[in-house]
Amino acid sequence: MDLELPTWVHDVPLPPAHATREQRMQYVLSLAAENVRRRGGPFASAIFNIETGACVGKGVNLVQAYACSILHAEMVAIIAAESALTSYSLSPHGDFELFASAEPCAMCLGAIPWSGVRRVVCAARDEDVRAIGFDEGVKPQPWTEALTSRGIEVVRDVLRSEAVSVLNAYAASGGIIYNG
Amino acid sequence: MDLELPTWVHDVPLPPAHATREQRMQYVLSLAAENVRRRGGPFASAIFNIETGACVGKGVNLVQAYACSILHAEMVAIIAAESALTSYSLSPHGDFELFASAEPCAMCLGAIPWSGVRRVVCAARDEDVRAIGFDEGVKPQPWTEALTSRGIEVVRDVLRSEAVSVLNAYAASGGIIYNG
Repeated sequence: MDLELPTWVHDVPLPPAHATREQRMQYVLSLAAENVRRRGGPFASAIFNIETGACVGKGVNLVQAYACSILHAEMVAIIAAESALTSYSLSPHGDFELFASAEPCAMCLGAIPWSGVRRVVCAARDEDVRAIGFDEGVKPQPWTEALTSRGIEVVRDVLRSEAVSVLNAYAASGGIIYNG
Repeated sequence: MDLELPTWVHDVPLPPAHATREQRMQYVLSLAAENVRRRGGPFASAIFNIETGACVGKGVNLVQAYACSILHAEMVAIIAAESALTSYSLSPHGDFELFASAEPCAMCLGAIPWSGVRRVVCAARDEDVRAIGFDEGVKPQPWTEALTSRGIEVVRDVLRSEAVSVLNAYAASGGIIYNG
């Protein structure tokens, strides 16, 4: 598999280095909305250096594009960030935060600690994703403890309603609910 | 990321089409043992068509080789199988079983339902993996229910002691315990 981000992803303007949390999430939601317009899944993610604000990895859902069930947006962003730093853990390289347009499914939840990020920031809730028919899998409950127990901060509901609008746009467009 | 299996993987003889469960696991453990000799992680996986016995995907742990935390053996095997069938779910193409040299970590456990396999067969137990220092992550408990509740059969302890020998060989060789 020769994994590359679609070229349009690099044309979406990045948030400024000292962006607010909402500005970073707005960027991620712009990626998700554009992915929907291009018939991809309604999810996006990005990883930022907490100190510098630099974006070190971007991801959109590529499940259909690559016929690969593991290419959720968070997984793509983790692959991109680790590739950029040539390191299977980000933690030796600084403090990083992963933004996701929706709360992670069971797989992505399990993957996040391996990536070495220090914070996860989510927009739509798990139940918002399930509401349009996607399956989030069986997670430890409460799922946030799977991260906080390992020192990973979880921030929820950042631009949640905007993220729900992207999910609804996907559902309204007749987007495929894979793994539904 | 241009993901390819190491070429030596294709030189390891496949089990016969009508192999026993133990013969299929022996094949997977041969991959794991050879990966250790080549300084990779002590884990391997393979996906077989339950009816025909055909191997549709192989995986060894490539975390260090690709500097990528998500390239656990099961993930590599899922990527390979879905790529071979050009499908983000195996289930429309038949009934498949995933063999793994060890019980899945939290990430791989979450990924397995998305792959569309019908059965998971494991050798080493979670606690065997933790015993040499690896982290398996926070899983729903009991973890097997995350699969059986979705109709995925779980078979444990197939050649467990042989799998533990591979884990111990890795630890004795001074293999890196990433995500430890």
